[in-house]
Amino acid sequence: MQISPRILKGFRDSLPDQELIRRDAFFKLEKTFRSHGLVPVDTPALEYTEVLLGKGGGETDKQVYSFKDNGNREVALRFDLTVPFARFMAMHVNKVGLPFKRYHMAKVWRGENTQKGRFREFYQCDFDIVGLDNASADFEILMIIFDALQQLGIDRFTIRISHRGLFNEFLERLGIVSLSVEILRTVDKLSKIGRENTFEQLCNITSRDKAEKILSFISCGDAASDGTIPDTEEILSRLTSLVGFKSDHLSRIEDIFGYMRDSGVSGKLILDPSITRGLDYYTGIVYETFLDQLPGIGSICSGGRYNNLASLYSKEQLPGVGASIGLDRLLAAMEDPQLMNNHQETVPGSWADVIILCMSESYTGFYAKTAAEFRAAGFKAEIYHTQKKMAQQFKYAEKRSIPFAVIAGANEIEKGHINIKNLTNFEEIQDITIFEAIRFMRNGVI
Amino acid sequence: MQISPRILKGFRDSLPDQELIRRDAFFKLEKTFRSHGLVPVDTPALEYTEVLLGKGGGETDKQVYSFKDNGNREVALRFDLTVPFARFMAMHVNKVGLPFKRYHMAKVWRGENTQKGRFREFYQCDFDIVGLDNASADFEILMIIFDALQQLGIDRFTIRISHRGLFNEFLERLGIVSLSVEILRTVDKLSKIGRENTFEQLCNITSRDKAEKILSFISCGDAASDGTIPDTEEILSRLTSLVGFKSDHLSRIEDIFGYMRDSGVSGKLILDPSITRGLDYYTGIVYETFLDQLPGIGSICSGGRYNNLASLYSKEQLPGVGASIGLDRLLAAMEDPQLMNNHQETVPGSWADVIILCMSESYTGFYAKTAAEFRAAGFKAEIYHTQKKMAQQFKYAEKRSIPFAVIAGANEIEKGHINIKNLTNFEEIQDITIFEAIRFMRNGVI
Repeated sequence: MQISPRILKGFRDSLPDQELIRRDAFFKLEKTFRSHGLVPVDTPALEYTEVLLGKGGGETDKQVYSFKDNGNREVALRFDLTVPFARFMAMHVNKVGLPFKRYHMAKVWRGENTQKGRFREFYQCDFDIVGLDNASADFEILMIIFDALQQLGIDRFTIRISHRGLFNEFLERLGIVSLSVEILRTVDKLSKIGRENTFEQLCNITSRDKAEKILSFISCGDAASDGTIPDTEEILSRLTSLVGFKSDHLSRIEDIFGYMRDSGVSGKLILDPSITRGLDYYTGIVYETFLDQLPGIGSICSGGRYNNLASLYSKEQLPGVGASIGLDRLLAAMEDPQLMNNHQETVPGSWADVIILCMSESYTGFYAKTAAEFRAAGFKAEIYHTQKKMAQQFKYAEKRSIPFAVIAGANEIEKGHINIKNLTNFEEIQDITIFEAIRFMRNGVI
Repeated sequence: MQISPRILKGFRDSLPDQELIRRDAFFKLEKTFRSHGLVPVDTPALEYTEVLLGKGGGETDKQVYSFKDNGNREVALRFDLTVPFARFMAMHVNKVGLPFKRYHMAKVWRGENTQKGRFREFYQCDFDIVGLDNASADFEILMIIFDALQQLGIDRFTIRISHRGLFNEFLERLGIVSLSVEILRTVDKLSKIGRENTFEQLCNITSRDKAEKILSFISCGDAASDGTIPDTEEILSRLTSLVGFKSDHLSRIEDIFGYMRDSGVSGKLILDPSITRGLDYYTGIVYETFLDQLPGIGSICSGGRYNNLASLYSKEQLPGVGASIGLDRLLAAMEDPQLMNNHQETVPGSWADVIILCMSESYTGFYAKTAAEFRAAGFKAEIYHTQKKMAQQFKYAEKRSIPFAVIAGANEIEKGHINIKNLTNFEEIQDITIFEAIRFMRNGVI
């Protein structure tokens, strides 16, 4: 009895063309993280529901895949990598030591409404520095974002940074810090709903006068009516007068911009007080990253500083700073050829570098030897295993974007020689050694 | 209210020292698979229970994590990568084309009895060639096993190969092919329960006479009483006379050994008729791989040929050949230093190549610039972000096995110079350029 092969709504298979691109991106990100001294960790996909959601559970609950396992335990699939990391640090802080710098790229699951084009299984890519609270650690995370995106071949992007603590000091001055959660949630929607709707909504939370002051805070980095954009110094001085004193948080921002200048790091970092992030737990710098050519897709890498990662599980205070790359959004954007810089190598869509075609299956030993020599030279070498018509073998290679083919029959094999064909321009060089073929693949001549 | 941080029985966190080793192994395996022209795929962790288990479900059921999702669908976590791959091929065969060569390294979940030292979440690493049924494809999988283990630094291992079809022909000649499932299950336990117990159990299934014949089949590769080990030719001729005719399956084995000879591939491949594999669905060659120095841990890579991968979902006949690497078992074995060959690089236990120590946080910009130059030269360079006592900074580096430290204070920074210290032998070179420091790290001299 046959079963209809199908997958769950909101879930996806990843076919080779897509998976090759994704794994290439993972590889480049991992290389960047490691180059900054970050180390990988892994946590279970399944955890106690209570550990993931806390005693009560909130709005997230309905989205979480939770159930009773065969041992009658309440368990759930992780819905992000932050909560498991908090639990991890509460358990292992003494083993991993502080400061601890880690990355984690793994799947998470949420029973989201798929009509919004959302998926129920997707990757998250998080990196954090835990156990430090200073401008140097803040700056490190920003450098990693710069490096990671440049590694992926993306040159034109801007990190917009602000400071949650500063915003809270400002609300305190206005005497409305108790309303900060609602205010933050409203301000976070600014780019979506526009200035006027934001103002309306703020007026529902606080007085018209204070709503105006909030608007002037978050827009003090905006261009003037004559188009002039204020520089960092100018914004900092405006923020100082709005907050009413030279706050430590302002010095923190100054230090970060100073390090940026001293390091000569290339990349655009802009002070933008409209960045506040909706989430409750940020206490220091917050940032979002936008593609200069595709601002409309929103932030592709966001994060900030928090003062207590593991408060749910431990009395130990664990301050940290981190970011999360929106990998699915970024990979979708990377399909836009305009976005990619010129240094970008060929899209990794080729399934192999060279294919050894099959004149006769009895030559398999020779073909295997040939393939092994190409591999030793660093090439991906595939063998076509059956004696099909040449046209069919070429078609197979073409469909998989394999750029070179080796053809060797009795005459060549007797001498230990091969023929090699460039499948892009159909140039063929006959009766050469494997060493000459490798030179041909590398340099175009033998 | 605080929650006790804990993880589920049978699940594990992976801390950096362990995760670095695992990711290094993944990287080497992936590189090997890609070098043979295999491509990656991914499938969802969660699928319809019916798709994974079939209409009935069998003994696996109790081990499977299955539940009703919020949409009232019966869903389950995958318990292996083979069933999802069969479903994948039934759905996508026209998109990926045949022959199709894929690998998949991912987590699977089984509610196993943890008392046996088993885990409920673990990685599988599968690779297959689908759409071909010939000796060339069979041989390719064996070559990949050779390459993969050698890439991991393991030189001394033996692949033991036999042929399930041949064994079935033999049972047919004895008139007991209908009992093959029970017989295979018994023979598969030979190495665990020994020759005598196997014989006893075979006698419970069939006659004493036939049980003896089965034993002589599976042991016809064994050493004689004088210690002589029969060569492949000899075993093939014994098998021919036991089966009663020169079977096509025997020619297949001959071809594979012929290709092995012609290709000059290094590695030990031994014909061993006692290898039968317990699983029902193998129809052609079957093989297991043993570490020469640790045979007791059992096979670290097993597989074989099947004639119909997706029979549960599709009428299309999809023959294939594949193998699965027992990654957890292998990684545990690799902790044995005796096992590793001499070419093996240092165990990847170092968290970074060089650490930039902190004389003052105000120098962060210079330190960032220095780190970036080390990174551009291919090194993993970490910054120590706070102005702690030097002893504490050195201790941090030592605990993470970082071999070099950069020390730069006002005097050096003024000239754009640094001091570098080898933390293994405490050799320090002072007042040099970053370029000289890189030469020192590479060559031991500036």
